[in-house]
Amino acid sequence: MPLAKISVPKHLSISQAKALAAAVHDGLVQTCNVPPEELFQIISRIDTDELILDPHYGGVTRTKNACVIEVLLLPRPDDKKRALFRHVTEQAVKAGFRADDVMIVLVENSLMDWCLGLGVAYADQRAKA
Amino acid sequence: MPLAKISVPKHLSISQAKALAAAVHDGLVQTCNVPPEELFQIISRIDTDELILDPHYGGVTRTKNACVIEVLLLPRPDDKKRALFRHVTEQAVKAGFRADDVMIVLVENSLMDWCLGLGVAYADQRAKA
Amino acid sequence: MPLAKISVPKHLSISQAKALAAAVHDGLVQTCNVPPEELFQIISRIDTDELILDPHYGGVTRTKNACVIEVLLLPRPDDKKRALFRHVTEQAVKAGFRADDVMIVLVENSLMDWCLGLGVAYADQRAKA
Repeated sequence: MPLAKISVPKHLSISQAKALAAAVHDGLVQTCNVPPEELFQIISRIDTDELILDPHYGGVTRTKNACVIEVLLLPRPDDKKRALFRHVTEQAVKAGFRADDVMIVLVENSLMDWCLGLGVAYADQRAKA
Repeated sequence: MPLAKISVPKHLSISQAKALAAAVHDGLVQTCNVPPEELFQIISRIDTDELILDPHYGGVTRTKNACVIEVLLLPRPDDKKRALFRHVTEQAVKAGFRADDVMIVLVENSLMDWCLGLGVAYADQRAKA
Repeated sequence: MPLAKISVPKHLSISQAKALAAAVHDGLVQTCNVPPEELFQIISRIDTDELILDPHYGGVTRTKNACVIEVLLLPRPDDKKRALFRHVTEQAVKAGFRADDVMIVLVENSLMDWCLGLGVAYADQRAKA
């Protein structure tokens, strides 16, 4: 039940943004038991001067290509989160991003907080299936 | 104390987006005891290729018109959430949306997390009133 | 570990938006023990008719310049939140905003929810340092 919101600087091409989005989804599928079809992402392409990120905080060296990935998801244990961070970043690097430029932030909610359509709580839909 | 963030594909008109926003607010008012004047919404109109939603996950059939509604709100019991999902979707359908195209996600926070203006926690303002 | 998302009406200049962002960061630094270099902000400039805010709810008088600031951060005690609201708003007023036009909403997550880069949980990076 993740929703990923991916903020990238506008000078990146849409195909670069989509490659990052694909890395995020692959990480969720490979490390967090998310089914491949459970794909919900919103990409925002942001003007460079509207994406304000310290160039060094956290022991990294961010460039003008730095991106912020927010993932809203059900609670996961720490080890899954660690694996998710690692996997998303590895896939992003394969897609041409620098590992320093990939920031990931998680927000957890509950199963009852999701309605995937039709006005029905997904928790109830799943219980019936 | 809800803040609704409503992401719609850019090809929908602003009046369609506003109709969906009105459906969201009506749902909050009718099912979650939100006063009608407690209206805080941000609409984002997103390029089609930046809104990446699986066409079928969750037993629905999403079209290019599918929208994602995130609501940040104080904790509500499950039955209120169920009623909110149902009511928002019913109103969206009346406004011309397909029920399959309305995805709703909730995030809860606390009363002390809200400052509605003037630099004062709303919790304190309400306690004084 | 805050990420601030700052939604301002599009008719404000980028320098006004940045002044508000600076007020938000100053508040976090002064009241919430955030190091000055821990700066992560995303500004969104929103069409006036896509930012729908009640003109009066909460005992304030909002104008067309009203802004919504969301801050995702680690848990803070109530008194820090109160101080944050007050300080951000005071600084925003110094930068030319009306205090009524500054709405602030907090969402808390956990230390393990943050990866600042390199695919490593910041919690682990900090433990090693």
